[in-house]
Amino acid sequence: MVSQRTQNTVAESSEMLSFRRTIGEIQDLSSIQGLLGWDLETMMPKKGAIIRARQMATLTRLIHEKTTAPELAELLKILEKQSGLDIIPQAMVREFSREYERAAKIPTDLMEEFVQLTAEAHHVWIEAREKKQFSIFQPLLCKIVELNRKIADIVGYEGSPYNALLDEYEVGLTTEQLEPLFASLKTSLISLLKRIQNSKASVDTSFLNRHYEAEKQLQFLKFILTEMGFDFDAGRLDLSAHPFSSGTGYTDVRMTTRVSETDLFSALSSSMHEAGHGMYSQGVNPQLHRTNLSDGTSLGIHESQSRMWENIIGRSHAFWRYYYPKLQGLYHPQLDDVSFDRFYKAINTVQPSFIRVEADEVTYNLHILIRYEIEKAIIEGDLPVSDIPSAWNAKYQEYLGVTPPDDAIGCLQDVHWSHGSFGYFPTYTLGNLYSAQFFQQATLDIPGLEAKIANGDLKTLKRWLNEQIHWVGKSERPAQIVQRVCNEPLNAQYFVDYLEKKYSQIYGL
Amino acid sequence: MVSQRTQNTVAESSEMLSFRRTIGEIQDLSSIQGLLGWDLETMMPKKGAIIRARQMATLTRLIHEKTTAPELAELLKILEKQSGLDIIPQAMVREFSREYERAAKIPTDLMEEFVQLTAEAHHVWIEAREKKQFSIFQPLLCKIVELNRKIADIVGYEGSPYNALLDEYEVGLTTEQLEPLFASLKTSLISLLKRIQNSKASVDTSFLNRHYEAEKQLQFLKFILTEMGFDFDAGRLDLSAHPFSSGTGYTDVRMTTRVSETDLFSALSSSMHEAGHGMYSQGVNPQLHRTNLSDGTSLGIHESQSRMWENIIGRSHAFWRYYYPKLQGLYHPQLDDVSFDRFYKAINTVQPSFIRVEADEVTYNLHILIRYEIEKAIIEGDLPVSDIPSAWNAKYQEYLGVTPPDDAIGCLQDVHWSHGSFGYFPTYTLGNLYSAQFFQQATLDIPGLEAKIANGDLKTLKRWLNEQIHWVGKSERPAQIVQRVCNEPLNAQYFVDYLEKKYSQIYGL
Repeated sequence: MVSQRTQNTVAESSEMLSFRRTIGEIQDLSSIQGLLGWDLETMMPKKGAIIRARQMATLTRLIHEKTTAPELAELLKILEKQSGLDIIPQAMVREFSREYERAAKIPTDLMEEFVQLTAEAHHVWIEAREKKQFSIFQPLLCKIVELNRKIADIVGYEGSPYNALLDEYEVGLTTEQLEPLFASLKTSLISLLKRIQNSKASVDTSFLNRHYEAEKQLQFLKFILTEMGFDFDAGRLDLSAHPFSSGTGYTDVRMTTRVSETDLFSALSSSMHEAGHGMYSQGVNPQLHRTNLSDGTSLGIHESQSRMWENIIGRSHAFWRYYYPKLQGLYHPQLDDVSFDRFYKAINTVQPSFIRVEADEVTYNLHILIRYEIEKAIIEGDLPVSDIPSAWNAKYQEYLGVTPPDDAIGCLQDVHWSHGSFGYFPTYTLGNLYSAQFFQQATLDIPGLEAKIANGDLKTLKRWLNEQIHWVGKSERPAQIVQRVCNEPLNAQYFVDYLEKKYSQIYGL
Repeated sequence: MVSQRTQNTVAESSEMLSFRRTIGEIQDLSSIQGLLGWDLETMMPKKGAIIRARQMATLTRLIHEKTTAPELAELLKILEKQSGLDIIPQAMVREFSREYERAAKIPTDLMEEFVQLTAEAHHVWIEAREKKQFSIFQPLLCKIVELNRKIADIVGYEGSPYNALLDEYEVGLTTEQLEPLFASLKTSLISLLKRIQNSKASVDTSFLNRHYEAEKQLQFLKFILTEMGFDFDAGRLDLSAHPFSSGTGYTDVRMTTRVSETDLFSALSSSMHEAGHGMYSQGVNPQLHRTNLSDGTSLGIHESQSRMWENIIGRSHAFWRYYYPKLQGLYHPQLDDVSFDRFYKAINTVQPSFIRVEADEVTYNLHILIRYEIEKAIIEGDLPVSDIPSAWNAKYQEYLGVTPPDDAIGCLQDVHWSHGSFGYFPTYTLGNLYSAQFFQQATLDIPGLEAKIANGDLKTLKRWLNEQIHWVGKSERPAQIVQRVCNEPLNAQYFVDYLEKKYSQIYGL
């Protein structure tokens, strides 16, 4: 239980009230943007695109105007000096100041150049991917890297310029902190993967691609999400081309999934992932609603929630011991000949591949480490952009034992760099590391957690996540949350131990 | 074909460009409001209501701020004096000035009082209706009437104070113009109704309430809407508690319907109605997009489009001659024993009732005339609010021959007065009058129109409506449009003739 729950209600200064009003308005407009984005992907008729683009542009400009208004800067100056601020107002001022200072340092024309460049780059990236030619994308990627370096210089950093970018996605984190974590992780993962590949165990996954009616899949995954504690009175699940979680926040979460009738596991797995994000948003302290602290604290912590439900729970022996018979009952006769053991092994098959988003738990982070090493080297000037394809392929061969046959399923597969996002990739692996560390702590805090899960009680874990992680929203930073919850800093060993134990059992290592 | 189609492209003044920019922003925000409203009724999870209310309030305030900004008033003054403005910019300035002047006259605190009062009144009205007691609603209705009179005084009027209110819904129209139209209409309708009631014809409508699967109903009505020319690439049809048409405008129309499996005709009829509105929005000249002229010119003209498709087409002999066999083919065996003649008569049954929204073509306007007479007398001070129930019941007895058993299905049935809307009701009847007059003109302009409809060609009429009425959007006022299209002012005789001819045939008068 965290301190805000019993917050006192001292009258706030007129400056604080004024600050709250402006922040509230900005939040309203941002949450509207979230809804428009969701609608665009799920409901909007084709020809609505032009109006939608104008609506989005107008909202973006209004938010920018409000965020950078000189009166707000004045207000911040006063509030930063006010003593005796309550814990929430204090965090509001601190977090807003941080973003404000960063934004204020970057000249408007540079920001506009960045927006225009990445808009163009996105289209060129699509073309390059279609034609499987990195060289088409290369010139624009060079410019993006240049602008990112310029921004890093303007924003300022200690150590690597990559830190200035990383900080945008995972506040407070530096590459100096990441290096030892990622180094030991890499060694462990490569070692585990080799042992798995050398094992004699073979898994038959073919039954996963039998015919499974879409309607039943949706019925089952909504049942699972409800069991997890996702509140459908405060959210929806719809269909879209790519699964995502968005919407207007806390009491109105909009998630999507994609259903294939010849893939039993994909929609369920991605829905449990999105519901992990969604329950984080739903679980934030209502006192933080309509403030700048009303959602998750960082991409990494957000990803820890989605990954925990998708993998640590959603691919676990305990979970399926309870839910597999229900799935089997729903898909009769498709699953009649599939034993629990066969099912459990099939959904946990380890197989090196070219594509990150299709990777299993063991190889996934090797995909990320490759991207991290490459983008860091590029930003630090140690790798020219033109060398990306060869560096990429060499690393895939070294870490995963495979070489992508072309750039489309090689270094052009992800959208991130075309969006101008450098420093984003590590948050995926951070999410996995946090998730294992949090889950280990939950196992200590909740007696008999595994037995509960094996009895279909998912809500005890959900409540623990609500109280320990969700409730504080953005009022605590990632490192603070990990320290408070786990009594130690981020530690990659929990994730390695989790994989070692699980996959040793599955592959008889 | 109207003049804007071949508009020239002289460079616009900086003031005009600046005006366009502001208007464009206001339109973006209004269209977002439209989408949020649609989402609220169709998609939003229950608990999303609180965020939605804040989002709406923030948008309303931003729109108000932008609309009443002093810089905009300055701009308007300059633009009103600029000569040589093109036809569209001229209309933009004219229509915006009109609304601006009206809004500027009403003090902010009066406007806020009005908003608060009607918000409260809406809840009280619901309670009064539930308890079937007008007296519960009476005190708040008195205040609403008082405020409406005050607003009329502030806004100014010639003749009746009711004119100041009417002008808000049907620009340029006065009660002096309405009186003779409505008087002759009333006489004709009462006479026709008496003759129908005295006729020996009896119609069996019971088959309409057999079981009709919702999915098939939706399939059929989407087919009909497509036949009409509604563009589903620029709009949607979803389900909601009460049918409406809204959304973000021109290329993104959001309509809703409500399907009952024991009512064959209701969803289809209401969907054709909403599609009439929707096709009006879709048909506006793209040059008017993102201006204050981008939707229909008035409530009355909008209603003429919905009523034409709902009634003049959707209950016509010609239309069903072509489409009834298709409906019959879909609902086998439900419609096997229902001949075309029986079906046609059933959907055109005339039967006086208590409820406006369930009324047939003949009695519908008597419901409206009763409301018009009462609200006009109240605003003019000739009828005290406390006398509404007795006046209502007396008029129902006199015009329709029925007396409502209680206020819930009497004078408390409509939401309009609780919203503070006085002067709105006449636009429904205006819609019917316009629709018959327009359709008569279409019959003259399009050779063999009825035969076309009887052959399933609905798009020729749709194109005529596009060119004659939709294209000009709000750049022409209602009276101007009627005069241009029909070469004479609004004339109620066309509607009376239409009813006389149609119902004489059906009832063998």
